Amino acid sequence: MHDAREVVVLRYGHRPGRDDRMTTHVGLTARALGADRVIFPDNAGQSAETVRDITDRFGGPFAVELREDQKAIVRDFEGIVVHLTMYGERVQDVEEEVREAVGLDGSDGTDGEASTPRDLLVVVGGEKVPWALYERADFNVGVTNQPHSEVAGLAVFLDRLFEGAELDREWENADRRVLPEATGKTVVDAGEEVAGDDDAGTGDDPAPADRD
Amino acid sequence: MHDAREVVVLRYGHRPGRDDRMTTHVGLTARALGADRVIFPDNAGQSAETVRDITDRFGGPFAVELREDQKAIVRDFEGIVVHLTMYGERVQDVEEEVREAVGLDGSDGTDGEASTPRDLLVVVGGEKVPWALYERADFNVGVTNQPHSEVAGLAVFLDRLFEGAELDREWENADRRVLPEATGKTVVDAGEEVAGDDDAGTGDDPAPADRD
Repeated sequence: MHDAREVVVLRYGHRPGRDDRMTTHVGLTARALGADRVIFPDNAGQSAETVRDITDRFGGPFAVELREDQKAIVRDFEGIVVHLTMYGERVQDVEEEVREAVGLDGSDGTDGEASTPRDLLVVVGGEKVPWALYERADFNVGVTNQPHSEVAGLAVFLDRLFEGAELDREWENADRRVLPEATGKTVVDAGEEVAGDDDAGTGDDPAPADRD
Repeated sequence: MHDAREVVVLRYGHRPGRDDRMTTHVGLTARALGADRVIFPDNAGQSAETVRDITDRFGGPFAVELREDQKAIVRDFEGIVVHLTMYGERVQDVEEEVREAVGLDGSDGTDGEASTPRDLLVVVGGEKVPWALYERADFNVGVTNQPHSEVAGLAVFLDRLFEGAELDREWENADRRVLPEATGKTVVDAGEEVAGDDDAGTGDDPAPADRD
Protein backbone atom coordinates (compact mmCIF):
# COMPACT_ATOMS: atom_id res chain seq x y z
CA MET A 1 0.00 0.00 0.00
CA HIS A 2 2.94 2.32 0.63
CA ASP A 3 5.54 2.73 -2.10
CA ALA A 4 8.57 3.11 0.14
CA ARG A 5 7.78 0.17 2.35
CA GLU A 6 6.37 -3.31 1.88
CA VAL A 7 4.02 -4.82 4.43
CA VAL A 8 4.07 -8.61 4.20
CA VAL A 9 1.85 -11.04 6.09
CA LEU A 10 3.24 -14.53 6.77
CA ARG A 11 0.80 -17.28 7.67
CA TYR A 12 2.96 -19.54 9.86
CA GLY A 13 1.88 -23.16 9.57
CA HIS A 14 -1.05 -24.68 7.71
CA ARG A 15 -2.87 -27.98 8.02
CA PRO A 16 -4.50 -28.80 4.66
CA GLY A 17 -8.22 -29.39 4.95
CA ARG A 18 -8.58 -28.23 8.52
CA ASP A 19 -6.98 -24.81 8.07
CA ASP A 20 -8.00 -24.02 4.47
CA ARG A 21 -10.68 -21.57 5.38
CA MET A 22 -8.72 -19.75 8.10
CA THR A 23 -5.68 -19.45 5.86
CA THR A 24 -7.83 -18.10 3.03
CA HIS A 25 -9.34 -15.55 5.38
CA VAL A 26 -5.87 -14.50 6.58
CA GLY A 27 -4.91 -13.85 2.95
CA LEU A 28 -8.10 -12.00 2.05
CA THR A 29 -7.89 -9.89 5.19
CA ALA A 30 -4.24 -9.03 4.47
CA ARG A 31 -5.27 -7.89 0.98
CA ALA A 32 -8.38 -5.95 2.01
CA LEU A 33 -6.70 -4.15 4.91
CA GLY A 34 -3.60 -2.76 3.26
CA ALA A 35 -0.83 -5.38 3.17
CA ASP A 36 1.13 -5.70 -0.09
CA ARG A 37 1.76 -9.43 -0.05
CA VAL A 38 0.90 -12.63 1.77
CA ILE A 39 3.12 -15.69 2.13
CA PHE A 40 1.48 -19.07 2.73
CA PRO A 41 3.17 -22.39 3.48
CA ASP A 42 3.60 -24.40 0.29
CA ASN A 43 0.87 -26.87 1.30
CA ALA A 44 -1.74 -24.10 1.20
CA GLY A 45 -2.15 -24.01 -2.58
CA GLN A 46 -5.93 -24.02 -2.46
CA SER A 47 -6.04 -20.92 -0.28
CA ALA A 48 -3.51 -19.22 -2.55
CA GLU A 49 -5.74 -19.90 -5.57
CA THR A 50 -8.74 -18.32 -3.85
CA VAL A 51 -6.86 -15.17 -2.87
CA ARG A 52 -5.40 -14.82 -6.37
CA ASP A 53 -8.84 -15.24 -7.89
CA ILE A 54 -10.26 -12.48 -5.67
CA THR A 55 -7.33 -10.23 -6.60
CA ASP A 56 -7.94 -10.88 -10.31
CA ARG A 57 -11.56 -9.88 -9.94
CA PHE A 58 -11.45 -7.08 -7.36
CA GLY A 59 -8.02 -5.61 -8.03
CA GLY A 60 -4.59 -5.12 -6.58
CA PRO A 61 -1.71 -4.86 -6.52
CA PHE A 62 -1.49 -7.75 -4.08
CA ALA A 63 0.87 -10.72 -4.30
CA VAL A 64 0.39 -14.27 -3.04
CA GLU A 65 3.40 -16.52 -2.53
CA LEU A 66 3.79 -20.16 -1.56
CA ARG A 67 7.05 -20.91 0.28
CA GLU A 68 8.30 -23.91 2.20
CA ASP A 69 10.97 -22.12 4.23
CA GLN A 70 8.90 -20.40 6.89
CA LYS A 71 11.66 -20.38 9.49
CA ALA A 72 14.19 -18.89 7.08
CA ILE A 73 11.77 -16.19 5.94
CA VAL A 74 11.40 -14.96 9.50
CA ARG A 75 15.08 -15.37 10.39
CA ASP A 76 16.39 -13.58 7.31
CA PHE A 77 13.76 -10.86 6.91
CA GLU A 78 15.42 -7.51 6.36
CA GLY A 79 13.10 -5.25 8.24
CA ILE A 80 10.85 -5.25 11.28
CA VAL A 81 9.14 -8.48 12.37
CA VAL A 82 5.87 -8.33 14.31
CA HIS A 83 4.50 -11.60 15.68
CA LEU A 84 0.83 -11.52 16.64
CA THR A 85 0.27 -13.64 19.75
CA MET A 86 -2.04 -13.53 22.75
CA TYR A 87 1.08 -13.63 24.95
CA GLY A 88 2.53 -10.43 23.50
CA GLU A 89 2.58 -6.83 24.59
CA ARG A 90 -0.72 -4.99 24.37
CA VAL A 91 -1.30 -3.55 20.90
CA GLN A 92 -2.49 -0.23 22.35
CA ASP A 93 0.85 0.07 24.21
CA VAL A 94 3.21 -0.71 21.32
CA GLU A 95 1.43 0.34 18.13
CA GLU A 96 3.05 3.77 18.05
CA GLU A 97 6.49 2.21 18.53
CA VAL A 98 5.83 -0.18 15.65
CA ARG A 99 4.75 2.70 13.41
CA GLU A 100 7.94 4.58 14.28
CA ALA A 101 10.06 1.51 13.58
CA VAL A 102 8.72 1.22 10.01
CA GLY A 103 8.34 4.93 9.31
CA LEU A 104 4.57 5.09 9.48
CA ASP A 105 4.68 7.83 12.08
CA GLY A 106 4.36 11.46 10.92
CA SER A 107 2.19 12.44 7.99
CA ASP A 108 3.73 10.48 5.10
CA GLY A 109 7.00 12.34 5.52
CA THR A 110 5.65 15.58 4.07
CA ASP A 111 6.57 17.45 7.24
CA GLY A 112 9.95 15.76 7.44
CA GLU A 113 9.12 14.15 10.77
CA ALA A 114 8.53 10.56 9.77
CA SER A 115 11.17 7.92 10.42
CA THR A 116 12.85 6.06 7.57
CA PRO A 117 10.49 3.58 5.88
CA ARG A 118 11.32 -0.05 6.60
CA ASP A 119 9.68 -3.25 5.43
CA LEU A 120 7.39 -5.00 7.88
CA LEU A 121 6.70 -8.72 8.25
CA VAL A 122 3.55 -9.55 10.23
CA VAL A 123 3.57 -13.19 11.34
CA VAL A 124 0.22 -14.84 12.03
CA GLY A 125 0.50 -18.20 13.73
CA GLY A 126 -1.71 -21.14 12.92
CA GLU A 127 -0.52 -24.32 14.59
CA LYS A 128 2.10 -24.01 17.31
CA VAL A 129 4.93 -21.66 16.36
CA PRO A 130 8.57 -22.26 17.40
CA TRP A 131 10.07 -20.40 20.33
CA ALA A 132 12.66 -18.92 17.98
CA LEU A 133 9.89 -16.82 16.45
CA TYR A 134 9.18 -15.13 19.79
CA GLU A 135 12.90 -14.39 20.09
CA ARG A 136 13.42 -13.17 16.54
CA ALA A 137 10.38 -10.91 16.52
CA ASP A 138 11.07 -7.25 17.11
CA PHE A 139 7.60 -7.06 18.61
CA ASN A 140 5.38 -9.80 20.01
CA VAL A 141 1.98 -8.12 19.97
CA GLY A 142 -1.30 -9.15 21.54
CA VAL A 143 -4.59 -7.82 20.21
CA THR A 144 -5.98 -8.47 23.68
CA ASN A 145 -4.37 -11.21 25.75
CA GLN A 146 -7.46 -13.34 25.24
CA PRO A 147 -7.80 -16.38 22.99
CA HIS A 148 -9.85 -15.44 19.94
CA SER A 149 -8.95 -15.50 16.24
CA GLU A 150 -5.79 -14.90 14.26
CA VAL A 151 -7.94 -13.31 11.55
CA ALA A 152 -9.45 -10.85 14.02
CA GLY A 153 -6.04 -10.06 15.47
CA LEU A 154 -4.57 -9.39 12.04
CA ALA A 155 -7.49 -7.16 11.08
CA VAL A 156 -7.29 -4.96 14.16
CA PHE A 157 -3.50 -4.78 13.95
CA LEU A 158 -3.52 -3.64 10.31
CA ASP A 159 -6.30 -1.10 10.88
CA ARG A 160 -4.31 0.39 13.76
CA LEU A 161 -0.98 0.22 11.94
CA PHE A 162 -2.33 2.25 9.03
CA GLU A 163 -4.61 4.34 11.28
CA GLY A 164 -7.54 3.67 8.99
CA ALA A 165 -5.83 4.94 5.83
CA GLU A 166 -6.09 1.44 4.33
CA LEU A 167 -9.86 1.85 4.10
CA ASP A 168 -9.46 4.58 1.47
CA ARG A 169 -7.21 2.52 -0.79
CA GLU A 170 -7.93 2.55 -4.51
CA TRP A 171 -7.72 -0.74 -6.41
CA GLU A 172 -6.00 -1.20 -9.76
CA ASN A 173 -6.87 -3.61 -12.55
CA ALA A 174 -10.16 -4.65 -11.01
CA ASP A 175 -12.88 -6.28 -13.10
CA ARG A 176 -15.60 -5.23 -10.74
CA ARG A 177 -16.34 -2.95 -7.90
CA VAL A 178 -18.95 -2.92 -5.13
CA LEU A 179 -20.76 0.37 -4.62
CA PRO A 180 -21.18 1.14 -0.93
CA GLU A 181 -24.81 1.89 -0.18
CA ALA A 182 -27.29 2.08 2.69
CA THR A 183 -29.51 -0.70 1.34
CA GLY A 184 -28.47 -2.66 -1.71
CA LYS A 185 -26.10 -5.14 -3.32
CA THR A 186 -24.65 -3.34 -6.30
CA VAL A 187 -21.62 -4.56 -8.23
CA VAL A 188 -20.46 -2.60 -11.29
CA ASP A 189 -17.77 -3.06 -13.90
CA ALA A 190 -14.71 -1.41 -12.46
CA GLY A 191 -14.35 1.01 -15.36
CA GLU A 192 -18.01 1.88 -15.48
CA GLU A 193 -19.41 5.33 -14.72
CA VAL A 194 -21.33 5.33 -11.48
CA ALA A 195 -24.44 7.30 -12.47
CA GLY A 196 -27.54 5.26 -13.24
CA ASP A 197 -26.09 1.79 -12.83
CA ASP A 198 -28.36 0.51 -10.12
CA ASP A 199 -29.32 -2.57 -12.08
CA ALA A 200 -25.79 -3.76 -12.81
CA GLY A 201 -24.51 -7.07 -11.63
CA THR A 202 -26.60 -7.48 -8.53
CA GLY A 203 -27.00 -11.19 -9.11
CA ASP A 204 -23.38 -11.81 -8.24
CA ASP A 205 -22.40 -12.63 -4.70
CA PRO A 206 -18.66 -12.74 -4.21
CA ALA A 207 -18.76 -13.14 -0.42
CA PRO A 208 -15.78 -15.09 0.87
CA ALA A 209 -18.13 -17.46 2.64
CA ASP A 210 -18.87 -18.89 -0.81
CA ARG A 211 -15.29 -19.08 -1.95
CA ASP A 212 -13.93 -22.32 -0.53
CA MET B 1 -19.14 -4.21 28.31
CA HIS B 2 -21.29 -1.17 29.05
CA ASP B 3 -23.85 -1.38 31.83
CA ALA B 4 -26.50 0.78 30.24
CA ARG B 5 -26.43 -0.93 26.88
CA GLU B 6 -26.05 -4.48 25.61
CA VAL B 7 -24.02 -5.22 22.51
CA VAL B 8 -25.11 -8.52 20.98
CA VAL B 9 -23.50 -10.32 18.04
CA LEU B 10 -25.72 -12.57 15.95
CA ARG B 11 -24.07 -15.16 13.74
CA TYR B 12 -26.60 -15.48 10.91
CA GLY B 13 -26.57 -18.98 9.43
CA HIS B 14 -24.28 -21.91 10.19
CA ARG B 15 -23.39 -25.06 8.28
CA PRO B 16 -22.29 -27.73 10.80
CA GLY B 17 -18.84 -29.10 10.03
CA ARG B 18 -17.92 -26.59 7.38
CA ASP B 19 -18.58 -23.45 9.44
CA ASP B 20 -17.64 -24.70 12.92
CA ARG B 21 -14.33 -22.93 13.07
CA MET B 22 -15.55 -19.62 11.60
CA THR B 23 -18.55 -19.56 13.92
CA THR B 24 -16.30 -20.31 16.91
CA HIS B 25 -14.02 -17.45 15.88
CA VAL B 26 -16.99 -15.09 15.52
CA GLY B 27 -17.97 -15.95 19.09
CA LEU B 28 -14.46 -15.64 20.54
CA THR B 29 -13.90 -12.36 18.71
CA ALA B 30 -17.21 -10.98 20.00
CA ARG B 31 -16.15 -11.90 23.55
CA ALA B 32 -12.58 -10.61 23.30
CA LEU B 33 -13.52 -7.32 21.67
CA GLY B 34 -16.22 -6.06 23.98
CA ALA B 35 -19.60 -7.56 23.04
CA ASP B 36 -21.77 -8.79 25.91
CA ARG B 37 -23.40 -11.76 24.22
CA VAL B 38 -23.31 -13.87 21.08
CA ILE B 39 -26.24 -15.71 19.52
CA PHE B 40 -25.54 -18.74 17.33
CA PRO B 41 -28.00 -20.76 15.26
CA ASP B 42 -29.17 -23.81 17.21
CA ASN B 43 -27.15 -26.17 15.01
CA ALA B 44 -23.87 -24.59 16.19
CA GLY B 45 -23.73 -26.35 19.54
CA GLN B 46 -20.09 -27.30 19.20
CA SER B 47 -19.01 -23.70 18.66
CA ALA B 48 -21.12 -22.62 21.62
CA GLU B 49 -19.36 -25.18 23.84
CA THR B 50 -15.94 -23.87 22.83
CA VAL B 51 -16.84 -20.24 23.52
CA ARG B 52 -18.39 -21.15 26.89
CA ASP B 53 -15.29 -23.12 27.82
CA ILE B 54 -13.03 -20.16 27.03
CA THR B 55 -15.31 -17.89 29.07
CA ASP B 56 -15.15 -20.29 32.03
CA ARG B 57 -11.36 -20.26 31.92
CA PHE B 58 -10.56 -16.68 30.90
CA GLY B 59 -13.50 -14.82 32.40
CA GLY B 60 -16.57 -12.83 31.56
CA PRO B 61 -19.25 -11.78 31.81
CA PHE B 62 -20.08 -13.06 28.34
CA ALA B 63 -23.15 -15.04 27.34
CA VAL B 64 -23.57 -17.60 24.56
CA GLU B 65 -27.02 -18.47 23.30
CA LEU B 66 -28.33 -20.99 20.80
CA ARG B 67 -31.53 -19.91 19.04
CA GLU B 68 -33.42 -21.23 16.07
CA ASP B 69 -35.37 -18.09 15.27
CA GLN B 70 -32.73 -15.97 13.53
CA LYS B 71 -35.22 -14.02 11.43
CA ALA B 72 -37.40 -13.19 14.43
CA ILE B 73 -34.43 -12.06 16.49
CA VAL B 74 -33.51 -9.49 13.88
CA ARG B 75 -37.09 -8.43 13.16
CA ASP B 76 -38.07 -7.98 16.81
CA PHE B 77 -34.84 -6.55 18.21
CA GLU B 78 -35.56 -3.52 20.36
CA GLY B 79 -32.59 -1.36 19.55
CA ILE B 80 -30.25 -0.60 16.70
CA VAL B 81 -29.39 -3.29 14.14
CA VAL B 82 -26.08 -3.18 12.27
CA HIS B 83 -25.55 -5.68 9.46
CA LEU B 84 -21.95 -6.18 8.40
CA THR B 85 -21.76 -6.68 4.64
CA MET B 86 -19.32 -5.84 1.87
CA TYR B 87 -22.21 -4.08 0.09
CA GLY B 88 -22.82 -1.66 2.93
CA GLU B 89 -21.84 1.92 3.62
CA ARG B 90 -18.19 2.49 4.45
CA VAL B 91 -17.48 1.96 8.13
CA GLN B 92 -15.36 5.10 8.29
CA ASP B 93 -18.34 7.10 7.00
CA VAL B 94 -21.01 5.77 9.37
CA GLU B 95 -19.23 4.72 12.57
CA GLU B 96 -19.87 8.03 14.30
CA GLU B 97 -23.55 7.86 13.38
CA VAL B 98 -23.77 4.33 14.80
CA ARG B 99 -22.12 5.46 18.01
CA GLU B 100 -24.60 8.31 18.33
CA ALA B 101 -27.51 5.96 17.69
CA VAL B 102 -26.54 3.74 20.63
CA GLY B 103 -25.20 6.46 22.94
CA LEU B 104 -21.52 5.65 22.60
CA ASP B 105 -20.72 9.19 21.52
CA GLY B 106 -19.49 11.63 24.18
CA SER B 107 -17.34 10.53 27.07
CA ASP B 108 -19.54 7.99 28.87
CA GLY B 109 -22.13 10.64 29.58
CA THR B 110 -20.05 12.40 32.23
CA ASP B 111 -20.24 15.64 30.30
CA GLY B 112 -23.93 15.23 29.61
CA GLU B 113 -23.38 15.13 25.86
CA ALA B 114 -23.83 11.46 25.10
CA SER B 115 -27.03 10.24 23.50
CA THR B 116 -29.36 7.83 25.30
CA PRO B 117 -27.87 4.31 25.51
CA ARG B 118 -29.61 1.79 23.26
CA ASP B 119 -28.96 -1.89 22.72
CA LEU B 120 -27.07 -2.88 19.59
CA LEU B 121 -27.38 -6.04 17.51
CA VAL B 122 -24.45 -6.69 15.17
CA VAL B 123 -25.37 -9.26 12.52
CA VAL B 124 -22.56 -11.26 10.94
CA GLY B 125 -23.62 -13.25 7.92
CA GLY B 126 -22.34 -16.69 7.11
CA GLU B 127 -24.22 -18.31 4.28
CA LYS B 128 -26.49 -16.09 2.20
CA VAL B 129 -28.63 -13.80 4.32
CA PRO B 130 -32.21 -12.85 3.35
CA TRP B 131 -32.96 -9.51 1.71
CA ALA B 132 -35.21 -8.64 4.65
CA LEU B 133 -32.09 -8.30 6.77
CA TYR B 134 -30.74 -5.54 4.53
CA GLU B 135 -34.08 -3.76 4.85
CA ARG B 136 -34.50 -4.21 8.60
CA ALA B 137 -30.96 -3.15 9.44
CA ASP B 138 -30.61 0.43 10.63
CA PHE B 139 -27.13 0.35 9.12
CA ASN B 140 -25.62 -1.94 6.50
CA VAL B 141 -21.92 -1.45 7.09
CA GLY B 142 -18.94 -2.51 4.99
CA VAL B 143 -15.50 -2.86 6.56
CA THR B 144 -14.11 -2.19 3.10
CA ASN B 145 -16.27 -3.13 0.12
CA GLN B 146 -13.91 -6.01 -0.61
CA PRO B 147 -14.54 -9.71 -0.01
CA HIS B 148 -12.52 -10.85 2.98
CA SER B 149 -13.64 -12.34 6.28
CA GLU B 150 -16.66 -11.91 8.52
CA VAL B 151 -14.35 -12.38 11.51
CA ALA B 152 -12.06 -9.57 10.35
CA GLY B 153 -15.03 -7.31 9.65
CA LEU B 154 -16.51 -7.93 13.10
CA ALA B 155 -13.14 -7.25 14.78
CA VAL B 156 -12.55 -3.92 13.05
CA PHE B 157 -16.16 -2.85 13.58
CA LEU B 158 -16.08 -3.55 17.34
CA ASP B 159 -12.68 -1.89 17.79
CA ARG B 160 -13.99 1.23 16.04
CA LEU B 161 -17.37 1.15 17.80
CA PHE B 162 -15.71 1.17 21.23
CA GLU B 163 -12.82 3.38 20.04
CA GLY B 164 -10.31 0.97 21.58
CA ALA B 165 -11.85 1.06 25.07
CA GLU B 166 -12.64 -2.67 24.79
CA LEU B 167 -8.91 -3.45 24.93
CA ASP B 168 -8.75 -2.24 28.54
CA ARG B 169 -11.60 -4.40 29.74
CA GLU B 170 -11.13 -6.27 33.02
CA TRP B 171 -12.34 -9.86 33.21
CA GLU B 172 -14.36 -11.31 36.09
CA ASN B 173 -14.36 -14.88 37.41
CA ALA B 174 -11.37 -15.96 35.34
CA ASP B 175 -9.35 -19.03 36.29
CA ARG B 176 -6.27 -17.78 34.49
CA ARG B 177 -4.78 -14.73 32.94
CA VAL B 178 -2.06 -14.15 30.33
CA LEU B 179 0.59 -11.62 31.26
CA PRO B 180 1.45 -9.37 28.32
CA GLU B 181 5.21 -9.39 27.76
CA ALA B 182 7.81 -8.60 25.12
CA THR B 183 9.10 -12.18 24.89
CA GLY B 184 7.37 -14.94 26.79
CA LYS B 185 4.32 -17.12 27.25
CA THR B 186 3.22 -16.58 30.81
CA VAL B 187 -0.14 -17.67 32.17
CA VAL B 188 -0.94 -17.10 35.84
CA ASP B 189 -3.82 -17.98 38.13
CA ALA B 190 -6.24 -15.09 37.80
CA GLY B 191 -6.13 -14.28 41.52
CA GLU B 192 -2.37 -14.54 41.74
CA GLU B 193 -0.06 -11.63 42.52
CA VAL B 194 2.00 -10.67 39.52
CA ALA B 195 5.48 -10.25 41.08
CA GLY B 196 7.86 -13.15 40.64
CA ASP B 197 5.57 -15.50 38.74
CA ASP B 198 7.62 -15.93 35.60
CA ASP B 199 7.58 -19.71 35.91
CA ALA B 200 3.83 -20.08 36.21
CA GLY B 201 1.81 -22.07 33.74
CA THR B 202 3.89 -21.54 30.63
CA GLY B 203 3.20 -25.06 29.44
CA ASP B 204 -0.38 -24.21 28.64
CA ASP B 205 -1.34 -23.06 25.18
CA PRO B 206 -4.95 -21.97 24.95
CA ALA B 207 -4.75 -20.61 21.41
CA PRO B 208 -8.08 -20.90 19.61
CA ALA B 209 -6.31 -22.68 16.74
CA ASP B 210 -6.15 -25.67 19.09
CA ARG B 211 -9.72 -25.43 20.26
CA ASP B 212 -11.77 -27.20 17.61
